[in-house]
Amino acid sequence: YNIVLLPGDGVGPEVTRAARDVLAVIGDFYGHSFNFSEHLIGGAAIDETGEPLPEATRAACVAADAVLLGAVGGPKWDGGKRRPEEGLLAIRKAMGLFANLRPLQVSPVMAHRSPLKKEIVEGVDLIVFRELTGGVYFGEKTRTADRATDLCEYTVPEIERVTRAAFQTARQRRGKVTSVDKANVMETSRLWREVVTRIHAEEFPEIALEHALVDSMAMHLIRKPREYDVILTENMFGDILSDEISVLGGSIGLLPSASLGTEGPGLFEPIHGSAPDIAGQDLANPVGTILSAALLLRHSLKLEDEADSIEAAVAAVLAAGAVTADLGGALGTRAATEAVIDAIR
Amino acid sequence: YNIVLLPGDGVGPEVTRAARDVLAVIGDFYGHSFNFSEHLIGGAAIDETGEPLPEATRAACVAADAVLLGAVGGPKWDGGKRRPEEGLLAIRKAMGLFANLRPLQVSPVMAHRSPLKKEIVEGVDLIVFRELTGGVYFGEKTRTADRATDLCEYTVPEIERVTRAAFQTARQRRGKVTSVDKANVMETSRLWREVVTRIHAEEFPEIALEHALVDSMAMHLIRKPREYDVILTENMFGDILSDEISVLGGSIGLLPSASLGTEGPGLFEPIHGSAPDIAGQDLANPVGTILSAALLLRHSLKLEDEADSIEAAVAAVLAAGAVTADLGGALGTRAATEAVIDAIR
Ligand SMILES: CC(C)[C@H](C(=O)O)[C@@H](O)C(=O)O
Ligand SMILES: CC(C)[C@H](C(=O)O)[C@@H](O)C(=O)O
Repeated sequence: YNIVLLPGDGVGPEVTRAARDVLAVIGDFYGHSFNFSEHLIGGAAIDETGEPLPEATRAACVAADAVLLGAVGGPKWDGGKRRPEEGLLAIRKAMGLFANLRPLQVSPVMAHRSPLKKEIVEGVDLIVFRELTGGVYFGEKTRTADRATDLCEYTVPEIERVTRAAFQTARQRRGKVTSVDKANVMETSRLWREVVTRIHAEEFPEIALEHALVDSMAMHLIRKPREYDVILTENMFGDILSDEISVLGGSIGLLPSASLGTEGPGLFEPIHGSAPDIAGQDLANPVGTILSAALLLRHSLKLEDEADSIEAAVAAVLAAGAVTADLGGALGTRAATEAVIDAIR
Repeated sequence: YNIVLLPGDGVGPEVTRAARDVLAVIGDFYGHSFNFSEHLIGGAAIDETGEPLPEATRAACVAADAVLLGAVGGPKWDGGKRRPEEGLLAIRKAMGLFANLRPLQVSPVMAHRSPLKKEIVEGVDLIVFRELTGGVYFGEKTRTADRATDLCEYTVPEIERVTRAAFQTARQRRGKVTSVDKANVMETSRLWREVVTRIHAEEFPEIALEHALVDSMAMHLIRKPREYDVILTENMFGDILSDEISVLGGSIGLLPSASLGTEGPGLFEPIHGSAPDIAGQDLANPVGTILSAALLLRHSLKLEDEADSIEAAVAAVLAAGAVTADLGGALGTRAATEAVIDAIR
C-alpha cells in the first residue's frame, strides 16, 4: 500500500510522524507493507517551492492508495502572496474529495473534561458530513480597493452526491439525518433543501430526515447533542459546526476526519489546526491523527480489523489516563504515541 | 414618543403585548406618554396584503421614534411565493440598521440552568456586534434548475461604520474587541480584517484587538466564554455565533437585541424566533422582548433610568424564580409579565 504523508506546518510534522509509527506497527503485526512517501504542502511548500501545492505533491496524492495530512497554516505566512490554506483547498479539489466525515463520540471517560455538563454530553455519538469541494470556498472572488465579494455556488449533482453518502451512512447507524442550511435567506440553501428532500423521498424513505437552520442548529448542538446521528451540511456551515462540537469531548486534539471522493484515494487529517504556538515542543496531542490513520485503514485500504485495533488501543490509553496536556495529562506527543503502540502490542 | 409595534408571527404578538404593557407602566410611572401603533410584518402581512413588508409599515417605522418587533416566520409560509423573513430583511435595510447588538450576561442565578458547567459560564458578560445590512443576506442571488448562487459582498464604508460602533462600545466596557472572520478562505473576510485593523490603529489604539477565525471562535465561545468582551463580526457569522451563545445563560428566551443605524429610530427585538409550536398558548418567555424594550428606552429614547428600572425588575423576578417553563418555572407569559410589572411598581 502506498501512503502519502503530508506533514505540513506547525504541529503537523509531529502528529504525522506519530500516526506513521502507529501504522508501521500495525503493518508489522498484520503483515502488510506500507510504503510511506512524504511530500510538501502548505506553508512548508511555499517556503521551499513558492507554491502551496507543488505539482509533485498533487501527482503523488492522486496516485496513492491514501493520503495522511497533518495541518497547514500559521501567522508566518500572513500577508504573503500565497497562503498555505490554498494548498489544502487545492488538494481537496484535485482529489475530488466532496465528502468530509467528522465522527464524534463522547465516552464516559472523556465526558467529565467537557465544558458541557456530563449529563448533556455523555454518550454523544454523531457524524458530520460536510460538503468539501463547493460553496463559498471555491466560488469566484473579486477585490477592488473599496469592495470584496465571494460567490457561494452549488449545483444539483454536488448536493446529490454528498447527500447520498450521508443517507448511506445513516442506514448503518441510527437511521436519522439532520440537514442544515439557511433556507430562509440563501438561494443555495433552498436548492440544498429541495435536493435533500427529493433524494430522501426517492431513495431513502426509511431514514428519518429533518431540516434545521444553521443558527438554531448552532444552539441545539450545545443543548441536546445526543439527539443527532448524521448531520449533513454544506462546506462553510460544516466548517463552523464541526469545530463548535469538537470541544464536546474535552479536546479538539482527539478528533479525526476522513475526506472521500467517489473513487480513488481518501485524505485523512485531524480536525485541529497547525497550532504554531505549541509546534516542535512535543506538546501536541497525536490522537486525532492516529485516529485519522484508523479511518484511512478502514475507508481507503478496507482493513477493518486493523482500524478497530487502533481505535481499541486509543480507547484503552484514554481510559488509563495516558494523555497529553490538553487533556490534563503529563505525557508528551512521543510518549502518548508510545502508549498507543504499547496498547496495540 | 411614537413607538411602532410589529407583532409579526408565532409567539410575536404575545411577547410584544407583554413588552408594551411594561412600557405603559414605565410611562405612567415616569410621566412619559408613549403612543403605540401596530403594523403588519412577516407572515401576518403576507396573509393580509400579499407583501411581507407593506408600504404602510415601512413608512410608519422610518417616521417613528423606535420600533419594537416580535418575531417573523413559520412553516405555514414555507414554499409560498413570498417569505416572512423578507419583511425583516427589508425593514432592516429600509431603516439603515447596520449594527445589531446582542448583549449576553450570565448571572449566578441563571448559570445553573446552562448546558455548560457553572464554572465556565458564571460571570459571562459580552456583547456581539453583528453587521446587519450587508454580506450574503443582501447580495445578488441566482437560480436555475440545476444551480444556485448567493453573493457575499462588503464595501469598506459598510465595515467601517459597524467597526467604529463596536470600538466605541468597547471603550465603555472592558476595552477588548474580538473581530471574527474567515480570512483564510474569504476575500470579504480579508477586506474585513484590513479595515478593522486600520480603524483600530488610526482611531482606537488603546483598545485591545484580536482577530479570530469563525470556526475556532465557535469552539472558543464554549470553552472560555468569559474571555470575551465585544465580539465584532459580519452578518452571517453574527447570526450563527449569537444563536450559539444564546443558550449559555439557560434560555434563548431571555435575550434582547438592538438594531441601530447612524441616526433615526432603532429596531428592538428578542433573539428568539416565532416558535410556532408554542404560539398562542401563553407559554412564551416574555423576558427577551421586555429587555428589548429596555434597550429601546436606552438607545432610541435616551431614557436611561427607565431602562435601568426594567432591567432591575427583570433581575429581581429571575432571582425570585418567577419564570416561564423554558427556565423550569410554572408561570405563563401573562403571569411572568405581571411579575415584572409588580417588581417595577
Ligand atoms: C484551514 C482551513 C482552510 C480549513 C477549512 O476551513 O476547511 C480548516 O478550517 C478545516 O476545517 O479543515
Ligand atoms: C429570521 C432570519 C432571517 C433572521 C436572520 O438570520 O437574520 C434571524 O435568524 C435573526 O437572527 O434575526
